[in-house]
Amino acid sequence: MDPFTRRVNRVTGLLRKHGVDSVLITKPENVRYLSGYRGDDACLFIARRARFLITDERFALQAKKDVKDFKIVIACSPLSDVISGLAVKAGVKKLGFESSHLSYASYERIRSGIKGAEPVSVHGMIEALRQVKDSREIAFIRDSVNILENAVAYFKSILKPGLSENDLAAKTEYFIRAASGEWASFELIVASGPNSAFPHAKPTDRIVRPNDMVLLDLGVSYEGYKSDLTRVFFLGKINPERRKIYGIVREAQRRSIEAIKPGAKISHIDGAARGFINAKGLGKRFGHALGHGIGLEVHESPSISSKNQAILRTGMVFTVEPAVYISGWGGVRIEDMVLVTRKGCEVLTDDINK
Amino acid sequence: MDPFTRRVNRVTGLLRKHGVDSVLITKPENVRYLSGYRGDDACLFIARRARFLITDERFALQAKKDVKDFKIVIACSPLSDVISGLAVKAGVKKLGFESSHLSYASYERIRSGIKGAEPVSVHGMIEALRQVKDSREIAFIRDSVNILENAVAYFKSILKPGLSENDLAAKTEYFIRAASGEWASFELIVASGPNSAFPHAKPTDRIVRPNDMVLLDLGVSYEGYKSDLTRVFFLGKINPERRKIYGIVREAQRRSIEAIKPGAKISHIDGAARGFINAKGLGKRFGHALGHGIGLEVHESPSISSKNQAILRTGMVFTVEPAVYISGWGGVRIEDMVLVTRKGCEVLTDDINK
Repeated sequence: MDPFTRRVNRVTGLLRKHGVDSVLITKPENVRYLSGYRGDDACLFIARRARFLITDERFALQAKKDVKDFKIVIACSPLSDVISGLAVKAGVKKLGFESSHLSYASYERIRSGIKGAEPVSVHGMIEALRQVKDSREIAFIRDSVNILENAVAYFKSILKPGLSENDLAAKTEYFIRAASGEWASFELIVASGPNSAFPHAKPTDRIVRPNDMVLLDLGVSYEGYKSDLTRVFFLGKINPERRKIYGIVREAQRRSIEAIKPGAKISHIDGAARGFINAKGLGKRFGHALGHGIGLEVHESPSISSKNQAILRTGMVFTVEPAVYISGWGGVRIEDMVLVTRKGCEVLTDDINK
Repeated sequence: MDPFTRRVNRVTGLLRKHGVDSVLITKPENVRYLSGYRGDDACLFIARRARFLITDERFALQAKKDVKDFKIVIACSPLSDVISGLAVKAGVKKLGFESSHLSYASYERIRSGIKGAEPVSVHGMIEALRQVKDSREIAFIRDSVNILENAVAYFKSILKPGLSENDLAAKTEYFIRAASGEWASFELIVASGPNSAFPHAKPTDRIVRPNDMVLLDLGVSYEGYKSDLTRVFFLGKINPERRKIYGIVREAQRRSIEAIKPGAKISHIDGAARGFINAKGLGKRFGHALGHGIGLEVHESPSISSKNQAILRTGMVFTVEPAVYISGWGGVRIEDMVLVTRKGCEVLTDDINK
């Protein structure tokens, strides 16, 4: 069965469980996941016997090209009015909606348009399905990682003192575009020296110096599927303090990866790295979660954090990225992507611990 | 006075007019406009005697670096809970919020957290202020345009048959990044031959041919300020039909630009170009608005459309981009940026009609 058909069937099968007779899908990645649509500004209306994709004239050709299972509606009036119209026509009583991906203004407009029917939040419904990747998705993710690793190898080959962070970023972006025709999935981070202490640094005109530490964090998108990877490179001589911090982050990552398997509690995976960093007295220098799910979004469910009490399942894909940031000194973050397998996990990115 | 201080003072001066005693700003460009903050995932809470920027640990350093007039709050619990807490502490009775930029879920959480207080939509409040640019903003826009024009000149210098759209796009992106350190503000359009008939074409692996027409639409961001420009290039011999269509679009643009001055009705500016294209029998081939405001967003208020009955004001900056698209044949769009001046307007981009 076509993967999109299968996914939509799962959604209709879950309607009752969520206490609704239909759903409105407004989050772009969920629209793509369920329909294959690659354009912008579209939403889906799904009821047991109705499947509509609603967009506007600008994306009519795109929708026709991408979408098979949905009836395409080209809206001339505001999308929210068209949705209300379809819902009323389908005799909807409880309309599920994505409460984190519908603005209050659109919510109000739809609510008043559907008359007696009741909007019901189905927050996280599609994201929960998307956590476990199917084989088609895993293949796309592998291709995405492949493009990325070539870019990292290229970066390594050009990295030398005298170039600015901007130079390095520009050359690497060009490499990605020229090699794959893909657009980087987020603005890459090239952070040298003390700049690496900012978890979300932007490339600057700082010139890389002979004994710098340089952090590269980049991602690409292939068929909509994201990859994400961070490496730290040392130029010249590695001083003992850097070696020590790097070793701690690496060992923390190794411990987390070792703990990954179906059935493991996510908070324990975070804890494996965090406990080690804490024990080294650096717990306060690691201020973010260990990782994040990745797929159609760079950051998606599950969050690999100390607060997540959920259980790992086969087919989940996420990053493992412990870090230590010291203001004025710099930061070390090592980020890899893993796939949960039946027996444990596979590191999808080039395994730094190999 | 510091521009950010001045802007926030204008907001507090407008609170009563909007029927609120405080506002929550959640749209990222509005957060930046009022505070100078360049990071992600932050919001502002502004009351007469309280100015807070709320973000999380990841952006603590960024916030400290960028923001002067706001007290920085690093949230450990969900942002919406922190906001409710601040609002309750400030004794808020009517909390303004951006209804198109706050999800229903966050709205609900804040609403229940602020107890007796009432949330009131102030949709478009900050966008209205942002329509008229101050001198600092205009300077940034000029710099942004300057980067862009160098990129267009570069594109022109490398354009030749045998290169693919992707090649041309990759090289031009690299030029922008290397020359300016800036990230393209949207994925650029390089559309050759019939591909130029799609208003939102993406670069493909189509090879440019000897007598092609090639459309380039690109934008950059400088200090957050966007620029946006479209040019059509003809390779080899220009056939009479192309020359004719190009001439019509160019004359349409000239007529609109000539009509721009403070006090002019925006719908008339659209009408000046559209009327001319209509008169040539091509009205159905020009399916979008004439232009859009531009600043911290690529597309912002005012929309330069036949439906906008508002009046132009000195300091507004927008694009003028009439077009003719013919499926299977191609498209011609000419896009320039203009600044409304006291006497009329200044074309900020290299004036194609000079």
